[in-house]
Amino acid sequence: MAPPEDLPPMTYRFLGRSGLQVSAISIGGWLTYGGYTEQEKAHECMKAAYDSGINFFDCAEIYSDGKSEEVMGAAIKKYGWKRNDLVISTKLYWGTAFGNNPVNNKGLSRKHILEGMDASLKRLGLDYVDVIYAHRPDRQTPMEETVRAFNHLINTGKALYWGTSMWNADEIATAWRYADKLGLIGPIVEQPEYNMLSRERVELEYAHLYREVGLGLTVFSPLRQGLLSGKYKNGIPEGSRLAQNQVEFIAGWWKRTGKEKFDEIIANINKLEPIAESLGIKQSTLALAWVLKNQNVSSAIIGASSAEQVYENVRAVGAVDKLTPEIMDKIDEILNNKPPAVIARY
Amino acid sequence: MAPPEDLPPMTYRFLGRSGLQVSAISIGGWLTYGGYTEQEKAHECMKAAYDSGINFFDCAEIYSDGKSEEVMGAAIKKYGWKRNDLVISTKLYWGTAFGNNPVNNKGLSRKHILEGMDASLKRLGLDYVDVIYAHRPDRQTPMEETVRAFNHLINTGKALYWGTSMWNADEIATAWRYADKLGLIGPIVEQPEYNMLSRERVELEYAHLYREVGLGLTVFSPLRQGLLSGKYKNGIPEGSRLAQNQVEFIAGWWKRTGKEKFDEIIANINKLEPIAESLGIKQSTLALAWVLKNQNVSSAIIGASSAEQVYENVRAVGAVDKLTPEIMDKIDEILNNKPPAVIARY
Amino acid sequence: MAPPEDLPPMTYRFLGRSGLQVSAISIGGWLTYGGYTEQEKAHECMKAAYDSGINFFDCAEIYSDGKSEEVMGAAIKKYGWKRNDLVISTKLYWGTAFGNNPVNNKGLSRKHILEGMDASLKRLGLDYVDVIYAHRPDRQTPMEETVRAFNHLINTGKALYWGTSMWNADEIATAWRYADKLGLIGPIVEQPEYNMLSRERVELEYAHLYREVGLGLTVFSPLRQGLLSGKYKNGIPEGSRLAQNQVEFIAGWWKRTGKEKFDEIIANINKLEPIAESLGIKQSTLALAWVLKNQNVSSAIIGASSAEQVYENVRAVGAVDKLTPEIMDKIDEILNNKPPAVIARY
Amino acid sequence: MAPPEDLPPMTYRFLGRSGLQVSAISIGGWLTYGGYTEQEKAHECMKAAYDSGINFFDCAEIYSDGKSEEVMGAAIKKYGWKRNDLVISTKLYWGTAFGNNPVNNKGLSRKHILEGMDASLKRLGLDYVDVIYAHRPDRQTPMEETVRAFNHLINTGKALYWGTSMWNADEIATAWRYADKLGLIGPIVEQPEYNMLSRERVELEYAHLYREVGLGLTVFSPLRQGLLSGKYKNGIPEGSRLAQNQVEFIAGWWKRTGKEKFDEIIANINKLEPIAESLGIKQSTLALAWVLKNQNVSSAIIGASSAEQVYENVRAVGAVDKLTPEIMDKIDEILNNKPPAVIARY
Repeated sequence: MAPPEDLPPMTYRFLGRSGLQVSAISIGGWLTYGGYTEQEKAHECMKAAYDSGINFFDCAEIYSDGKSEEVMGAAIKKYGWKRNDLVISTKLYWGTAFGNNPVNNKGLSRKHILEGMDASLKRLGLDYVDVIYAHRPDRQTPMEETVRAFNHLINTGKALYWGTSMWNADEIATAWRYADKLGLIGPIVEQPEYNMLSRERVELEYAHLYREVGLGLTVFSPLRQGLLSGKYKNGIPEGSRLAQNQVEFIAGWWKRTGKEKFDEIIANINKLEPIAESLGIKQSTLALAWVLKNQNVSSAIIGASSAEQVYENVRAVGAVDKLTPEIMDKIDEILNNKPPAVIARY
Repeated sequence: MAPPEDLPPMTYRFLGRSGLQVSAISIGGWLTYGGYTEQEKAHECMKAAYDSGINFFDCAEIYSDGKSEEVMGAAIKKYGWKRNDLVISTKLYWGTAFGNNPVNNKGLSRKHILEGMDASLKRLGLDYVDVIYAHRPDRQTPMEETVRAFNHLINTGKALYWGTSMWNADEIATAWRYADKLGLIGPIVEQPEYNMLSRERVELEYAHLYREVGLGLTVFSPLRQGLLSGKYKNGIPEGSRLAQNQVEFIAGWWKRTGKEKFDEIIANINKLEPIAESLGIKQSTLALAWVLKNQNVSSAIIGASSAEQVYENVRAVGAVDKLTPEIMDKIDEILNNKPPAVIARY
Repeated sequence: MAPPEDLPPMTYRFLGRSGLQVSAISIGGWLTYGGYTEQEKAHECMKAAYDSGINFFDCAEIYSDGKSEEVMGAAIKKYGWKRNDLVISTKLYWGTAFGNNPVNNKGLSRKHILEGMDASLKRLGLDYVDVIYAHRPDRQTPMEETVRAFNHLINTGKALYWGTSMWNADEIATAWRYADKLGLIGPIVEQPEYNMLSRERVELEYAHLYREVGLGLTVFSPLRQGLLSGKYKNGIPEGSRLAQNQVEFIAGWWKRTGKEKFDEIIANINKLEPIAESLGIKQSTLALAWVLKNQNVSSAIIGASSAEQVYENVRAVGAVDKLTPEIMDKIDEILNNKPPAVIARY
Repeated sequence: MAPPEDLPPMTYRFLGRSGLQVSAISIGGWLTYGGYTEQEKAHECMKAAYDSGINFFDCAEIYSDGKSEEVMGAAIKKYGWKRNDLVISTKLYWGTAFGNNPVNNKGLSRKHILEGMDASLKRLGLDYVDVIYAHRPDRQTPMEETVRAFNHLINTGKALYWGTSMWNADEIATAWRYADKLGLIGPIVEQPEYNMLSRERVELEYAHLYREVGLGLTVFSPLRQGLLSGKYKNGIPEGSRLAQNQVEFIAGWWKRTGKEKFDEIIANINKLEPIAESLGIKQSTLALAWVLKNQNVSSAIIGASSAEQVYENVRAVGAVDKLTPEIMDKIDEILNNKPPAVIARY
């Protein structure tokens, strides 16, 4: 299924203060490959993405215990895409693909970073990834060891850049402290959650880092597990991932909110529908475009399960300019969760 | 008025990862000198402090527009204390003593840091302070300029150490980044608010810094403007600073909480009274000892307005050991605001 | 022979200030493989170790002139163990496997470190070791050359970490001096002798290094050649390694002590038997648990000659908690060799 | 009293790997000035020293609580010696001259090093000393702070070089680690005890440092409190400092040895008398010349109480060449305490 003719052209952004260009929308491997979706379906999504101008595909050694990387690697081979046209990333921290033994197969020691990288590349069938992430901070391994190990991957040509995922602002600053001290390369990108319901980290906590280290962001859950698409506006359908007990996905974990709190969130989200309508776009397009409106976001990672969904998401690229200051203010009023501005000088 | 005979001996702690020893209780100049309290009264407090073993006196260029530093300097001269026995600190940021023109008299530019330091030393009548603080972060001045300027003060012998006040964890980490990169001296101490009602910053946000840079803490508002002493247990007296509109002092600023929220806080604090009684100490002693129980706290800054108050506060030093793990757990249960532990490895 | 059902679970410790986790008990190749014990026996020991949770196997290029490494490598292959689950170390200094010519085959020159590493890896049948040790200090080769050469091994992926064996405290500090100066990686671990009869180096000489450089320890001779197991309590059996002339093993060398001194040592050791009995453990378990009680010890290297012996040694892991401060004091009284405490401030 | 005509000419040695030249014999202020000896006597000794070619005078802030520095400073003024012809050193650690308050007046914090230096210079009446020593290691103050503070003294022109006294070899190596890392000046000289009865530290422990950092030595107690002069050969005279309880001076502290051990030492020392006689020199001259024979010794510090004693000691300079390899071997045989050689390559 070819892309619709009226699909907006993809835009590309620099990954933080680097020379690497990534598509504003990227595809993540968490749910898609090797997981809920079978390989055929996953490949179809990747193909749709590629055809839409998406060049950035994200994975992790833990996704489906390594199966995700295999599925992703198989697609690249199958479609004969040129390596140089792709930006491939994966993440190291939980080497569950090595089995159940967590001793030295978890965390950010030099040993796991080196062994994990080699195993990931093998599964991907690649010589190198473009970006290798530390999937979480590891406060037991000295930061210097971790910074040196990621630089080792870069020095040996196995990765071109490195980044972090769900690190605190001071941990990113500390990584740069060691990088600078030792003349090494610091992390250019962080991968946090970011969406209309989860703003504090990106808009407040990391604020100084955009200027200080030129931090780029690849953000996950831009639609908060579909919550922001409006698909739960009439309540939670049976069989959906949210059905079980009104959970909320916060910073990488599911948390029970209780029905009351959940309904309140839904009610608030529903107020965004008229705004989307007034702009002539879907509510999900509005939510995704809102994420891309933030210029510190290099790419929003989506997790589609069909080609249609991919195309649908790509429409957000064309909607970013519709978000005028007035519209943004209206949205802020509804969301009522805008973090305080960082005071530059008291 | 001499110290009571049963006053416990003062204890001294290293100021973070430095060789400087400060008394666990210190005297701050915000309200005391040059402000609400007249000079006579302020000197009486400083004398009582010195006689109790307190060696650490804190000030700021903004306190009473420089008047505080003058009052403090006058006391040192008047009582003939030896300079080497004292640890004197002041803070630079708002050079209100220079007048009303904020251009270049505010913030952390090299210009204001150098000019402010000289003016402070003149008011204090001293050749050097032991610790010079950046009173706030300044996000408009490049961090490198600020780090270099504080090192200039140290290199010219005008200060022995430097620290920060109310900086974010990532800003402190970034200051160290430049210090390390340039072979300069980083900030050894941060001065935040810390008390039973304000814990997150000290117990969670700064957590990595204790290990990473050996950060020491001098904390202000250990009794939350008297709230924790139990003196408002029956409501707010007319004419007190809190009377106006049920405000709450949060991290350096007054914020309106409304009567309802305020009463709730008071009710909670009142539950601490029986614990203090069971230990045979006053509620204010309990609150201050609780702050000192945290080993990352180098010194708790108090703001007394009479010699009796100083002596009363010093009693907390002798009460720290009464806070057994069991008592600490009970207090945590009442406060119900213990920050989550930092996860070392996910 | 499978591990006994009541064997305590293995514990893992970080190797000094690194992110690498090693089992508290490790297996050393000195006597076991390629030496007194034939290959079959050695493999049986390694299998028993692996089945007990031991993940750390130590060797050296000099052990049986390289034969040890071959036997160890063969076991890894034979049992199909995953590389990432193992921590493999070897040591360079005496390249006796190269033959009898000591010129350039001995010491810590760049030439021997590089050539020795390649030869060791070939014998082990591995791409890299986890830890490479300098087996002794070499005071003729400039320290800078040695530090650079070990970093070369790390940079080329042939080793993940490096350490020292039987270096003086000031030599380790000097290695870190060059590492820091050049932005290179310093030695994270030292391998000294440590047991109830040999305490000074570990408890006194290296004391500052635990704090200064985060030095970890892998200790050999935890049972002082069996002396501390009580097996010589009635004198020396004919045919044993000690029979010849009442020697004593001191820090890596055999030294004649004479019968009188030797009997005195034995008499003292015998006094530990009742303590072991009171704890319901064997005397050898007591001696090994005592070594592990020292938190600066990352791993105690044992040299078993049968599976039973391995299991026996592993029991020490479960006995560490039995060594209360009171028991430790009693042991110190008997041993009468506790080094003086390091004075922090005179 | 002018120097005897047959006094040998003074020799000068470089202070370690520095360009500073010091007389092989120097005068120490411990007992001499401000202490047991009154000022008149002390000045007479200093004059005799100066007239003999001694250019190196050593003191410490703790000697007689600062009185020693005053006496020494007064002599320089009184005799009108040119500053450039003198090498003056003092030591910081115990600021007892500041009074009885040890808080911040003791140890090697930046505060005490800066305040102590200013106070010493004031007592000496000088603008700068040539060498400033850390009188002991301080393991509570971070080494980096101490290294930076001594460099501050050098940068502000208050000292030309810095050194240590009674530090462990690894502490000296660690000081150099920070100096090198930060591009600062390391300690060029250590002041330990060294004499025929106390050899291990100088001949073994510091061995690597002579080559590694070019460590120079100024040694105290070259005659072991007179013991080596043979003056106690018939036992201890009533009223002498040794009379009380047969003490032995070991590494800076008086330690009781008991009469038996003490007599054994005396008997051994007495065997050196015939050797001295065969060379036509006094026994004290032999002992002092023996110290100077060690080329790592830059200067031997003596503590004379009369001009005659000074001249007597200076004779040792002329006796160094009489100590042929054969004589040195004979002495080693008698002393029976030669430390093992440092193995260069195993």
